[in-house]
Amino acid sequence: MYPYYLIDEIRKQNPLIHNITNIVVANDSANGLLAAGASPFMSSAPEEMEEVAELAAATVLNTGTLSSEQLAAMRIVGKKANQLAKPVIIDPVGVGATAFRKREICQLLTEVQPSLIRGNAGEIAALADIPWESKGVDAGSGSGNLVNAAETVAGKYQTLVSVSGETDIITDGQLTYFVENGTAFFPSMTGAGCLLSCLCGAFLSVANEGKLEAVVIANCSYAVAGELASAELNGLAVGTFRNNLLDVLSQLDSSTVEQMAKIRRRTT
Amino acid sequence: MYPYYLIDEIRKQNPLIHNITNIVVANDSANGLLAAGASPFMSSAPEEMEEVAELAAATVLNTGTLSSEQLAAMRIVGKKANQLAKPVIIDPVGVGATAFRKREICQLLTEVQPSLIRGNAGEIAALADIPWESKGVDAGSGSGNLVNAAETVAGKYQTLVSVSGETDIITDGQLTYFVENGTAFFPSMTGAGCLLSCLCGAFLSVANEGKLEAVVIANCSYAVAGELASAELNGLAVGTFRNNLLDVLSQLDSSTVEQMAKIRRRTT
Amino acid sequence: MYPYYLIDEIRKQNPLIHNITNIVVANDSANGLLAAGASPFMSSAPEEMEEVAELAAATVLNTGTLSSEQLAAMRIVGKKANQLAKPVIIDPVGVGATAFRKREICQLLTEVQPSLIRGNAGEIAALADIPWESKGVDAGSGSGNLVNAAETVAGKYQTLVSVSGETDIITDGQLTYFVENGTAFFPSMTGAGCLLSCLCGAFLSVANEGKLEAVVIANCSYAVAGELASAELNGLAVGTFRNNLLDVLSQLDSSTVEQMAKIRRRTT
Repeated sequence: MYPYYLIDEIRKQNPLIHNITNIVVANDSANGLLAAGASPFMSSAPEEMEEVAELAAATVLNTGTLSSEQLAAMRIVGKKANQLAKPVIIDPVGVGATAFRKREICQLLTEVQPSLIRGNAGEIAALADIPWESKGVDAGSGSGNLVNAAETVAGKYQTLVSVSGETDIITDGQLTYFVENGTAFFPSMTGAGCLLSCLCGAFLSVANEGKLEAVVIANCSYAVAGELASAELNGLAVGTFRNNLLDVLSQLDSSTVEQMAKIRRRTT
Repeated sequence: MYPYYLIDEIRKQNPLIHNITNIVVANDSANGLLAAGASPFMSSAPEEMEEVAELAAATVLNTGTLSSEQLAAMRIVGKKANQLAKPVIIDPVGVGATAFRKREICQLLTEVQPSLIRGNAGEIAALADIPWESKGVDAGSGSGNLVNAAETVAGKYQTLVSVSGETDIITDGQLTYFVENGTAFFPSMTGAGCLLSCLCGAFLSVANEGKLEAVVIANCSYAVAGELASAELNGLAVGTFRNNLLDVLSQLDSSTVEQMAKIRRRTT
Repeated sequence: MYPYYLIDEIRKQNPLIHNITNIVVANDSANGLLAAGASPFMSSAPEEMEEVAELAAATVLNTGTLSSEQLAAMRIVGKKANQLAKPVIIDPVGVGATAFRKREICQLLTEVQPSLIRGNAGEIAALADIPWESKGVDAGSGSGNLVNAAETVAGKYQTLVSVSGETDIITDGQLTYFVENGTAFFPSMTGAGCLLSCLCGAFLSVANEGKLEAVVIANCSYAVAGELASAELNGLAVGTFRNNLLDVLSQLDSSTVEQMAKIRRRTT
């Protein structure tokens, strides 16, 4: 039923995934895409953004170290990818942290139509304008209804939304899936969510239909990789976890993911 | 006597540490802060620097890949943090390497009051204007009196100073501490000092008083982590050391540090 | 016959290697240079480029995330290094990917005389204007004669050329060497080629004569390190390979490389 085979398809098609991303996570994002069978491309030069949108099978826009130069590049590549009907993933890192990010990201969302907005609880809560206690780029915690928030954001921006957390929430605003795989190590590794956004780009780029389910399986495959990467660790061990995660992603196949998957769905 | 408990306090309070840093070390600095229980934030966008100074518990300014854009951001965030009486750590990477860095960093120090200047021998010698053979961003070696240099810089800029090396020197210009923990692996890992600056930010952010001793314990905790991370390595092994360091930082507690600490003090 | 001793010479002389590089690989490039005994310096600030050219024993220009600001810095540092007769290595990452990169890199090559152009098959093919199927920054595949392409580029730009692949090709346009060491893991690690460019800078900086053979031995030493780093791995494991590579580079010596070397030569 679920398109677990997409990870195998990525390895077969080797899609080029373009990323405008930040100095913190660029290396892990590139290695993670390579490990999953995709081909990473990182560039923020406005001069080549139109061309890159043509070359790339998907575009991932990450606001982790947002600058006005990057915003200019995001606009160009995002609009062009929209014209070409190629997937655009927006990872609104820290959107709730500062007024600058909130304003610029919301503005970007009026100019570029995302296929998917993927963030943590604090980021999706900020886009839904619900109260949330988050700090900087962390997920934080809140009493609001996160599922409602995700569905609200999906409706408002006419896009898929994925919220990472202990339970991942993936929704198109109508149909909502929950992925209960994962590991407590993810929040301890910087860029763990950023890499998931990149992988969502790879999964979407090879999914001809069933885009929502493609994102569900991207989340599930990554969460299973995290479980496997942390399986033999005693206590937190950020360095080893990060290595293991790249190792596991290098060898992950659809049947392993399918066996371990914990997915629920709910129709509103 | 020494505030070893601050590492536990960081894990409890989870302070947000803002960093303007360089493309080489951003990932390790973020993961190291997470491993120690703090929450990293990286941004150089002038548009959000005032807000970020309000959000962050401490600000760390690193000149490893200094640019005029970063300098503009450093000024804004540094001045605002000064107004708010929040710790500002300056890591003057490569200040002795080029006239550009020397001029701009000295200028920055007239506009922003640091709580702590943390650097290697070559950097502190450059700020003290004593002769030193250093190359690029390395510590180098010299015949000058490094303790005097550190005390001079502390007096000149009315700040705490920490010099990393085989023996770390931490001083307020009057009272000077020496930390004799550490490992020969540190100079073999790029960004080892940069991460220490970030951790000093975290320690200072949770220290209500005894700022000098907080920096001593930041240095000591990190040096002990380095000892533990290299304990079982035969010969240089940069990749494994770096991983081990993040693993050890993930689990480090105050009692381990206290047991292994080698601290001396000297009043001038 | 071959200058295997250069790796020992690097450890003795500890040359400063300046890099204008990209956010993806900066950390691995710095750690890899340290592991090999060199001292990395990363800067793109135009204000200090002339000084840095004087300080550095070699300059490595990498176009992985090319921007117009970086291009300005590359021109200054490259011209100055030319005046000082110091090695300049150009790694034209993605030169075939976009018209922007092609135009700007070819323009740069008219202003700065490289000692060495080092790239993958797709990049060298693009500079030789022969047809090649490559995507983004990947090597890709083609039916053209890569050896001819390398020799053409060497002649056209009056420079050494090194092409990385299953068999590395190193040529001055007349005399061509082939290095048949290596590992299938290299293309799975982002920045594997970028690090090789940095190491070529280190090798060239300590080679008084026999520049072509110095590049051959840089390629061979790195390829042998890759073999050793992957020797005990079953299946792809990107995280572990990357660590192992840094560990192996930390301890690599000339006699190990000499024993394992597989080098052929051909005169045209």
